[in-house]
Amino acid sequence: MNTIKPSILPGFLELLPQEQIVFNKILDSIRKTYENFGFMPLDTPVIEKSEVLLAKGGGETEKQIYRFTKGDTDMSLRFDLTVPLARYVAQHSSELTFPFRRYQIGKVFRGERNQKGRFREFYQCDIDIVGTNELSLVNDAEIISVIYTTFKALGFMDFTIRVSNRKILQGLLNTIGVPDKISVLRIIDKLEKIGQQNITQELNDLGLNHEDIERTLALVELRGNNDEVLARLDTMGIDDVEYKQGLTELKQVIEAVKHFKVPSDNAKIDLSITRGLDYYTGTVFETTLNNYQQLGSVCSGGRYDNLAEYYTTKRLPGVGASIGLTRLYYQLREAGFWGIDETNLVKVMVIPIGDVLNSALSLVSELRSAGIPAQLYAECGKLSKKLSYVNKQNIPFALILGDEEIQNGTILVRNMRLGEQVSVPLEQILAPSYFMET
Amino acid sequence: MNTIKPSILPGFLELLPQEQIVFNKILDSIRKTYENFGFMPLDTPVIEKSEVLLAKGGGETEKQIYRFTKGDTDMSLRFDLTVPLARYVAQHSSELTFPFRRYQIGKVFRGERNQKGRFREFYQCDIDIVGTNELSLVNDAEIISVIYTTFKALGFMDFTIRVSNRKILQGLLNTIGVPDKISVLRIIDKLEKIGQQNITQELNDLGLNHEDIERTLALVELRGNNDEVLARLDTMGIDDVEYKQGLTELKQVIEAVKHFKVPSDNAKIDLSITRGLDYYTGTVFETTLNNYQQLGSVCSGGRYDNLAEYYTTKRLPGVGASIGLTRLYYQLREAGFWGIDETNLVKVMVIPIGDVLNSALSLVSELRSAGIPAQLYAECGKLSKKLSYVNKQNIPFALILGDEEIQNGTILVRNMRLGEQVSVPLEQILAPSYFMET
Repeated sequence: MNTIKPSILPGFLELLPQEQIVFNKILDSIRKTYENFGFMPLDTPVIEKSEVLLAKGGGETEKQIYRFTKGDTDMSLRFDLTVPLARYVAQHSSELTFPFRRYQIGKVFRGERNQKGRFREFYQCDIDIVGTNELSLVNDAEIISVIYTTFKALGFMDFTIRVSNRKILQGLLNTIGVPDKISVLRIIDKLEKIGQQNITQELNDLGLNHEDIERTLALVELRGNNDEVLARLDTMGIDDVEYKQGLTELKQVIEAVKHFKVPSDNAKIDLSITRGLDYYTGTVFETTLNNYQQLGSVCSGGRYDNLAEYYTTKRLPGVGASIGLTRLYYQLREAGFWGIDETNLVKVMVIPIGDVLNSALSLVSELRSAGIPAQLYAECGKLSKKLSYVNKQNIPFALILGDEEIQNGTILVRNMRLGEQVSVPLEQILAPSYFMET
Repeated sequence: MNTIKPSILPGFLELLPQEQIVFNKILDSIRKTYENFGFMPLDTPVIEKSEVLLAKGGGETEKQIYRFTKGDTDMSLRFDLTVPLARYVAQHSSELTFPFRRYQIGKVFRGERNQKGRFREFYQCDIDIVGTNELSLVNDAEIISVIYTTFKALGFMDFTIRVSNRKILQGLLNTIGVPDKISVLRIIDKLEKIGQQNITQELNDLGLNHEDIERTLALVELRGNNDEVLARLDTMGIDDVEYKQGLTELKQVIEAVKHFKVPSDNAKIDLSITRGLDYYTGTVFETTLNNYQQLGSVCSGGRYDNLAEYYTTKRLPGVGASIGLTRLYYQLREAGFWGIDETNLVKVMVIPIGDVLNSALSLVSELRSAGIPAQLYAECGKLSKKLSYVNKQNIPFALILGDEEIQNGTILVRNMRLGEQVSVPLEQILAPSYFMET
């Protein structure tokens, strides 16, 4: 028979088991933090109606979406978890209690140009709080607090959640009289990537004069601790309602973030953060790992006034954040931050020697019942081959069982790392603590 | 703006948060059992090359698969987790240690005819053990032991894993001289569904005479405890190599299952189990919930001689099982077996009264740091509205914080179920045990 070369499509990530264990630990940690903060799980379909997912339409989304028909049905794979949330909340609004807090961790799909470190199928880990009509600014601070706790729990020490409020820059642009404010926001969004000189050129092309550009850059390049930046924003003499509104909001959010016990080094005001997406209306933020700045933002989000406007006339304001986990994992694995876990999920391997299979089966069952993840080596072969399997699998202990051991009620415990073995009474190893100590 | 009706496609399941919590607990329980038995996690892509997924081709698969192109790429959504496993093992064989034990829990996609209780997107929970060249029969018993432990852990008391070995029936058919044995197996597979009379007719149509049909039915309708059935099989006087081989294998598997401490009521020989799929070659089994027989088999699997023949010339025998979880969950939710969880993941809701927001933020942070899943009600409104939110969310405790409480270093703890409230010193509630006892 001719065989087909076993391979997967470019832009898709698949891990070896030892890597998958690490990836799952990361997923579990994120999920645990989200749940500890009172977010409820959601799991929407991977496939949805194209007219629903593309309700907003336009732009990169339409180009990148995986869309197809089966029978008469026009369907697509979700490209993010925000559009499904909007659809879900509009569809189930009478069954949900608001503010509605949900997390969703799942794969999304984008037919992006093939590029190292970019994936066409990747995990997003989203949290959002959605209200009806009104939603307190404390929620913006809470999302920042979740993000802080999530990255701490993942073992990161040096990271910065850079917080801004779009209304501040928009307020300044009101006084300048720029009609196309979203274009300015998108240009400023690229400041870090393309530098001040290119930004100046692009703003100039958009029709801003030298003085306008100076004022804009002066604002977005403000640096200092949060109190200093807020004091400067108070005294800039910008007389605009939106500006003042944005500043008041930012102060409230930063104050609440402080009381959520997020250190000020981990949540800093940075007015160059604007987010390119047009649905954000107030608070916006991005997260930078300071030792891995080349990754760009690893967790972004913000406040939106109207989540589900394409599906309902109800006004549903919200605030949320998203971690693009596949890319984060891939980049940090390449950088050596996330290695391969040294230990297996399995703690012990039972190896029968000679005609003792039934006793070995009973032993492995008892270990499992005692909550000790255990495996049995039932294949034929020499002891050296079996021990080599145990080693390759990074299983820390081998339990060798022969006729002699059964007669004496003992077991030979081999510590694979130390290469030492001792004879131990059977009852002793069934205490759940036995393999934990070492 | 015109809105688009928010809805999902027929044949797709989406849950409310309280249902999702139950579903996730089931998933977690299955995963924990699989890991306790030493199966490693795997997460293959949802989208694969069509030529890979359809390497075998033919039948229902081609009709049901979601297949599409993007650019020049012909791709499909996986329709099970077995084909991706075969591809994975062939592709990564040099990086894996055999016997390779993996579990995978994930969504698969089938464009089935729309039918109540049938889903086009559903979770499969698979375990398999794959060897090179040889794989001990102990592994067949071990898969049965995992299934037993999994259903026990899910809270099922009365279920039967019905075990057979295909070689036994095939051996009988050899003596009869039936050329198309797989067709007979497929007919027998329907015995329970369509009854003895229809089976007789179909076997007759296939060319079996009265006596052949009698002998076949006598075999597949053997009942009794495992020892009785094995004794009967020994004395049936069928002189065929394949039959004897099958009987020897079945005896070994049943013996090992016993030593894995699976009660004989939960794992019974039933020779009417044949499995329709043509890749099974020895042990086969199905699982019936005896109080919900209408569900049919809720977990099936078996032994195959050559997992990855479409992708490699290496011989990779294996044995595995699969739970179709979405259907199982849906049916048992309808039957009232899985209700809606009464408790929320969140244990306490902090409610600030008056100008005490900052203290409330600190309190909720401290609760979370102490490992107590906590939420804050930060919206405006009357206390009664806030308590009603807590009730609707099934959160067991409300912590009410006002000026007086702050002055006294206390907090008002309201037990939502009992409707009682007590004033408690602050330190007391930060002990992780405080909310656990109740």
